[in-house]
Amino acid sequence: AASRLRLSGLCFLLQILNILLFAVFVRYSPESSPGQCPPQLNCSRRNQDSGFQEPRFQDVHIQVLLSFGLLVAFLSRYGPGKAAISILIIAFAIQWAVLIQGFFYFFLNGKIYVGAQSMVSADFCTAAVLISIGAVLGRANPVQMLLLALLEVTLCTLNEYILLSLMGVSDSGRSLTVHTFGAYFGLMVSRVLYQPHKDRRKREERQDTGYQTDVFAVVGTIYLWIFWPSFTSTSTVHDNTKNWAVLNTYFSLVASTVATLILSPVLYEESTPRMVQIQDATLAGMAVMGMAGEMLVTPFGALIAGFLVGLISPLGFRFFTPVLYSRLKIQDTCGVHNVHGLPGILGALLGTLLTLMATADTYGDRLELVFPLVAQGSRTVTDQALIQLGALPLTLLLAMLGGHITGAILKTKVLRCSPDEQYMENTVFWEVKLGNC
Amino acid sequence: AASRLRLSGLCFLLQILNILLFAVFVRYSPESSPGQCPPQLNCSRRNQDSGFQEPRFQDVHIQVLLSFGLLVAFLSRYGPGKAAISILIIAFAIQWAVLIQGFFYFFLNGKIYVGAQSMVSADFCTAAVLISIGAVLGRANPVQMLLLALLEVTLCTLNEYILLSLMGVSDSGRSLTVHTFGAYFGLMVSRVLYQPHKDRRKREERQDTGYQTDVFAVVGTIYLWIFWPSFTSTSTVHDNTKNWAVLNTYFSLVASTVATLILSPVLYEESTPRMVQIQDATLAGMAVMGMAGEMLVTPFGALIAGFLVGLISPLGFRFFTPVLYSRLKIQDTCGVHNVHGLPGILGALLGTLLTLMATADTYGDRLELVFPLVAQGSRTVTDQALIQLGALPLTLLLAMLGGHITGAILKTKVLRCSPDEQYMENTVFWEVKLGNC
Amino acid sequence: AASRLRLSGLCFLLQILNILLFAVFVRYSPESSPGQCPPQLNCSRRNQDSGFQEPRFQDVHIQVLLSFGLLVAFLSRYGPGKAAISILIIAFAIQWAVLIQGFFYFFLNGKIYVGAQSMVSADFCTAAVLISIGAVLGRANPVQMLLLALLEVTLCTLNEYILLSLMGVSDSGRSLTVHTFGAYFGLMVSRVLYQPHKDRRKREERQDTGYQTDVFAVVGTIYLWIFWPSFTSTSTVHDNTKNWAVLNTYFSLVASTVATLILSPVLYEESTPRMVQIQDATLAGMAVMGMAGEMLVTPFGALIAGFLVGLISPLGFRFFTPVLYSRLKIQDTCGVHNVHGLPGILGALLGTLLTLMATADTYGDRLELVFPLVAQGSRTVTDQALIQLGALPLTLLLAMLGGHITGAILKTKVLRCSPDEQYMENTVFWEVKLGNC
Repeated sequence: AASRLRLSGLCFLLQILNILLFAVFVRYSPESSPGQCPPQLNCSRRNQDSGFQEPRFQDVHIQVLLSFGLLVAFLSRYGPGKAAISILIIAFAIQWAVLIQGFFYFFLNGKIYVGAQSMVSADFCTAAVLISIGAVLGRANPVQMLLLALLEVTLCTLNEYILLSLMGVSDSGRSLTVHTFGAYFGLMVSRVLYQPHKDRRKREERQDTGYQTDVFAVVGTIYLWIFWPSFTSTSTVHDNTKNWAVLNTYFSLVASTVATLILSPVLYEESTPRMVQIQDATLAGMAVMGMAGEMLVTPFGALIAGFLVGLISPLGFRFFTPVLYSRLKIQDTCGVHNVHGLPGILGALLGTLLTLMATADTYGDRLELVFPLVAQGSRTVTDQALIQLGALPLTLLLAMLGGHITGAILKTKVLRCSPDEQYMENTVFWEVKLGNC
Repeated sequence: AASRLRLSGLCFLLQILNILLFAVFVRYSPESSPGQCPPQLNCSRRNQDSGFQEPRFQDVHIQVLLSFGLLVAFLSRYGPGKAAISILIIAFAIQWAVLIQGFFYFFLNGKIYVGAQSMVSADFCTAAVLISIGAVLGRANPVQMLLLALLEVTLCTLNEYILLSLMGVSDSGRSLTVHTFGAYFGLMVSRVLYQPHKDRRKREERQDTGYQTDVFAVVGTIYLWIFWPSFTSTSTVHDNTKNWAVLNTYFSLVASTVATLILSPVLYEESTPRMVQIQDATLAGMAVMGMAGEMLVTPFGALIAGFLVGLISPLGFRFFTPVLYSRLKIQDTCGVHNVHGLPGILGALLGTLLTLMATADTYGDRLELVFPLVAQGSRTVTDQALIQLGALPLTLLLAMLGGHITGAILKTKVLRCSPDEQYMENTVFWEVKLGNC
Repeated sequence: AASRLRLSGLCFLLQILNILLFAVFVRYSPESSPGQCPPQLNCSRRNQDSGFQEPRFQDVHIQVLLSFGLLVAFLSRYGPGKAAISILIIAFAIQWAVLIQGFFYFFLNGKIYVGAQSMVSADFCTAAVLISIGAVLGRANPVQMLLLALLEVTLCTLNEYILLSLMGVSDSGRSLTVHTFGAYFGLMVSRVLYQPHKDRRKREERQDTGYQTDVFAVVGTIYLWIFWPSFTSTSTVHDNTKNWAVLNTYFSLVASTVATLILSPVLYEESTPRMVQIQDATLAGMAVMGMAGEMLVTPFGALIAGFLVGLISPLGFRFFTPVLYSRLKIQDTCGVHNVHGLPGILGALLGTLLTLMATADTYGDRLELVFPLVAQGSRTVTDQALIQLGALPLTLLLAMLGGHITGAILKTKVLRCSPDEQYMENTVFWEVKLGNC
């Protein structure tokens, strides 16, 4: 009972804190109200520039963002019993991300001016948190998850700010800042929270069985096919790059799905892949297109990238996840390393390669949209490629360091549920504890 | 068998009636076909004024409206077995609402000119009907439900016409005309249909258990998060107010969700809230933003309103619903009073307060969009606030009076299933009869 | 094991083939990148003409198309276990359709220029394949289904090219080219694959029972109500006709749903229709509006058409499907003849009738959009109607001929699973084999 109320109290405190911070700092952006535009934000220019952007945002993006491609995808693994906790984490992380991202990006004269774009950024951050939680699920209680969200939103925003604003990296679909960061952050937290006496193997066997999982995997996969290609391309401001990003992402996920169907009968006894595997393939095929989506100028590139990642992801599940566990003591409950980590890294490497190959000839007007600094002449293509490449180890470093610190904080005795073993048997407290993901 | 065919025959008659009325009265609005605009409807001007409105409508609104946020939400309580009846009611109510709303709003030279806007209005009306049915579910047979839809669509449109067109009330998200009207209409019908020998308590216990409920609650909640913020703001014609309405609604539902997670372990034995409770919180957080959504100028207002309503709604379920039953003999099967009634009233009061505080300074150009009469100078802000406030008791009066009359009509012997008790045991006739909602 | 790997190998070969063909032929359309428009494709003009078309496409159509109205609809019959195969077929068919349709429509100087429109066309093609598979489900193994997709995409594109491009038939919602073609193609394949010793009756009884079916039928129906009206009207380039097509489709499906609820208690013992029946009614109500949707100038026409087809479809299930089986030896596992075949034919006949009645008076500016050749004066209305009518037997002929040839190829010993009877008992190999659809 005490631990139940502890979460209740923590939520209450955090929500009051959010309301107070919003009251002090957050105002609606004048962009949403053309009548009140302060000259510093030069919003009129932006509105003019973007052309059709404004209505497009309202129509699609809000819907897309709220669609929780990720939420549904994760639900397929958690089951509805655990959905309540996911939604709690999301509801908190979105408010917190609006605040933190606001301090970095939308801060002016002591106020954060939020608008539709803030919600887009906040949602990307929440996606990173959900990926990390996928790694520690079953070994963290809800209080720990809430604090993980609190810390990760801050660090993820910091990483994003360094990459996108300071270094000028082009990563519109967030291969690095969401997929790679979220996965390695979660894996490090998982490593710190490692408890040797838990039988991961047994858990994994229970993992994907049962009717419930299948229903949600089907719904999740369909949501991803519908909403993700647009989601990937929400942060590109430009009509034309967006269009290519959507098509590239779509081609990639199609090829990745076929690849999983090819490998599945070879790797497993079952003849037909389970829906959860197809969902993983869909996610992997999308993660790899995060950075490269707007850079690929030919559709077959997307087909090849999706096909390769669709082969690598099931191989990772089969051969790499056990090694990760036995050698590095990292329990990756939902396999986020195969679905988000590896594809994110591959996407970043592909993006670097494509940056090297970018020429004004093949890109045309799009060069200015994808690589503004190159188009302006302040950077060569090689410089840009080196910076894109350098962003990868930086992200890995920040994610692992952040994950290690966060894990250490979460491991403090105050946060652990007092008789730790008890939770193994006790399914009542939090179903999440059982963690058959 | 006779009663089965009675519904079949009634549906047939009503559908033929609909087709005849459509044939006589309904034509496509010339707005949809610029080539044929009669001068009286001055459609060209409207098209010009609205700017991006036309394509936006086609893209989003139709989808949003057909999305049946409500349908799915209710499904989570009915289960798929009862979905067939919901869809029958919806299919009939939409046709009927197009007709009735057409007579009030789109009638010209003996013809109703329907267009996309008619579908929006018709869908709002259908939402009110679904809310009312949530209150009487389990104690009304399908024939009664059909007649309830027939009568409520008419009365709801009358109420809406008085409020929006005659009194000039600003209620774009329909806190009053849909949520409050629907809830109190249904509660009065429920009171008139009260049958003392039925064991509500037992029914309630069966209510939210089982796997099926959870699956649909998850799907319903996600649908609401995706589509409702846009749904709330469909009736605002103006880009900029719409944007704020969407963001305010979103902040409100986020805070409301967290509030439910805080209260749930305090009120109930279970540590984690059931998905149905989170869905209720989502609905309540949206209902409270119906009127106030476009009036709030700071995001933290939406957070506070959502947080409070997220606390009030579960408290109502725990303490007020039993009182409603024991004292007032009102069986509120799906708890629409907590989810739609109270939040709707609170939304209307909040809207009144915000109207009082509206100044040209804080609103800027938006004043003309939200309160056109105030901006034109034909009303003071205080007058507008008094009218907004006066609309609340008027709506309650019309809803209760209408509900009482409707209930009395539904109670006539012809409509009751002949041996009334028999239906209690007989699950075969209509699953809805069993009403574990 | 051998047969498992056979599918795996076939998928691998086909995917490599796709990648190679994409590498050689497919490039992104310069339309997506205004900077690089070759003069032959005169894309700038098209962009100007279409006005709001470009952003609208990106926002809605991609989403709508990927929404798999059909996929979800079919899932309700297959169950999640079979969803994996559906998704394999879709993932392959989309790539293949982009190629084949590209050769017919977007081929220029030895390259296929794909863009958003290619994805729309590819998705329509995939829909036809899914309809055909609905007819043979349970009697075809996945290898056969893949080859069916390979052949049908080619033939379906050929039929579409003849109808739309060569004959100038107006069939924007694809009553003929998707619904009718897909249904009769599948029925012919089913007839050729007929195996007398299989007990269809027993299978049918198992067909729609169980909880799982209901969940997916509810989700599928809701998806259809949300996304299909837009889907139907994606291929009309013109804002105004699109608007009418959406409204007509919506009115038709509403009336069709009511009709099913009227007939269901008369035809079956059960008092309330099962969700699968309502889903069938929704599909039928949409198929009938495919061609006629943009031609109907009064809403009651859509109500009447939907109502009639909503009566015909359940009657077909009850009385015609058994005759089809016993007399013509056609096993129509999912009843595609009632849901897509008959409504498609009725839609084509209705379209012919409406073409005859089309006058410049009633259509106004829309005449040029719906019947460009008539508006230009190169055809009379009667000529256009005759051509619309002639397209129906041509489509039937091509579908049946193509289905017969495809069936004959699929029946070759190489493709059949070696000991044919064994699959009846063996549920392990492919769940699809069991075919309780």
